[in-house]
Amino acid sequence: MATKKPTWIVEKERQKRAEDALTVWLFGIHAVRDALLNPKRELLKLVVTKNAADRLADAIEQSGITPEICEPRKFSAPLDAGSVHQGAALEVKPLKWTDLQSIAIDAGPHGRLLFLDRVTDPHNVGAILRSAEVLGAAAVIATKRNAAPETGALAKTASGALERQPYVRIRNLADTMEEMKALGYILLGLDGEAEETMETVIASTLANGPRPIALVLGAEGPGLRDKTKATCDALMRIDSAGAFGSLNVSNAAAVSLYASLQNKSV
Amino acid sequence: MATKKPTWIVEKERQKRAEDALTVWLFGIHAVRDALLNPKRELLKLVVTKNAADRLADAIEQSGITPEICEPRKFSAPLDAGSVHQGAALEVKPLKWTDLQSIAIDAGPHGRLLFLDRVTDPHNVGAILRSAEVLGAAAVIATKRNAAPETGALAKTASGALERQPYVRIRNLADTMEEMKALGYILLGLDGEAEETMETVIASTLANGPRPIALVLGAEGPGLRDKTKATCDALMRIDSAGAFGSLNVSNAAAVSLYASLQNKSV
Repeated sequence: MATKKPTWIVEKERQKRAEDALTVWLFGIHAVRDALLNPKRELLKLVVTKNAADRLADAIEQSGITPEICEPRKFSAPLDAGSVHQGAALEVKPLKWTDLQSIAIDAGPHGRLLFLDRVTDPHNVGAILRSAEVLGAAAVIATKRNAAPETGALAKTASGALERQPYVRIRNLADTMEEMKALGYILLGLDGEAEETMETVIASTLANGPRPIALVLGAEGPGLRDKTKATCDALMRIDSAGAFGSLNVSNAAAVSLYASLQNKSV
Repeated sequence: MATKKPTWIVEKERQKRAEDALTVWLFGIHAVRDALLNPKRELLKLVVTKNAADRLADAIEQSGITPEICEPRKFSAPLDAGSVHQGAALEVKPLKWTDLQSIAIDAGPHGRLLFLDRVTDPHNVGAILRSAEVLGAAAVIATKRNAAPETGALAKTASGALERQPYVRIRNLADTMEEMKALGYILLGLDGEAEETMETVIASTLANGPRPIALVLGAEGPGLRDKTKATCDALMRIDSAGAFGSLNVSNAAAVSLYASLQNKSV
């Protein structure tokens, strides 16, 4: 009789198979073009109207994929109702950004990372990917569960950044935070209740020269989980001009990332 | 026979009546509570379920309004489909922030304003109002037409900021920009094609001490209109770490506002 596999191995294999089976439908002319032109994208199926095929002709040729041409009225891709697809939908595999260690090391002493703790809104994550790309964060890191999945809606808000900006999904946030700490990253958590301001904490972090920094942001409302807070090196708040109000999470990410980079020459 | 009124007066009176008739339906527990507690809000009608009435009891009492209690299944407020109303809807008049001149003058030498040129997405404008409140801009200014109207969706994304942060709707952007210039404001337009970076332009604007600054942002895609650009004192771009990408407009507003305030002691 064959030895029975332990339950945890069976579960791990099941998860692996589920992840391998996962595909994403991107939609809209821009998102589809960006993905077609991305050599790292594994392309599965392209559904386009004649009109969209014309608009995407160069990208389709360069990608080598054979499109399935579809009547506008019978557009057959499995998209959510209300998706503004502009006659173009592309099934792809999620991008694999496996080697976070290398990404983090290559970023060097001015390296910046963004950890997202249960930020589930695809529009916020899309906007954060854009800010990470423009302002220069090496990666945006979130958990595989309880985070915004790589969907067509996220791709659309990310406006191309999803194809280029590492969005690394890991199993356990605190574990990966510890790994980055071991590489020399200082982990700074955004917390509205923190005693010290962002400016004070960043200035003291960089007082003796450049240091790689990982900023840690939670979802609006619940904020950072206790375990996440405990894993940070320091907590800091974005100072408010008045008695009320708070930033949208993507704006908090952009402003803190910008602040951490402006201070790099301190 | 009575003298006939000139057409332009008839038109102006018609617009005035249309504006007076304008009401907004706010929805969701938080947005409704914020509006009920805002003494500047003219309250017209409150429709709530029994459950929502209990949750809002304090605010309802403080406002003095008599709620219309409604069965959850027969919730009767005229909201868009899919509006997450949580059993609470409140009809109000738009807030009147008429005296932009005073607001701009009271803001003093470190005063900051945000002009929005045809930014129509309510989620972006909602996020911008939050950033303006937290980072400390005296007003967000947009045109009456071709801008995100003060709707329930905007109020919800603004997360309370709509009740407190001046969102001033004016007739003509360039005219109001000129008025602010006459008060001493320096008008800095965000433009991806600009030759100089934001940091350079802000530093040179503030080289001889504090100056009130108005930041001018356009919609994603079209950007600033030609007339708007021509009315700015200078154009500046947010430098990108890579060859691609751009910030979401609310993130561009937050980062440029933050940058302009960080440099105030230069």
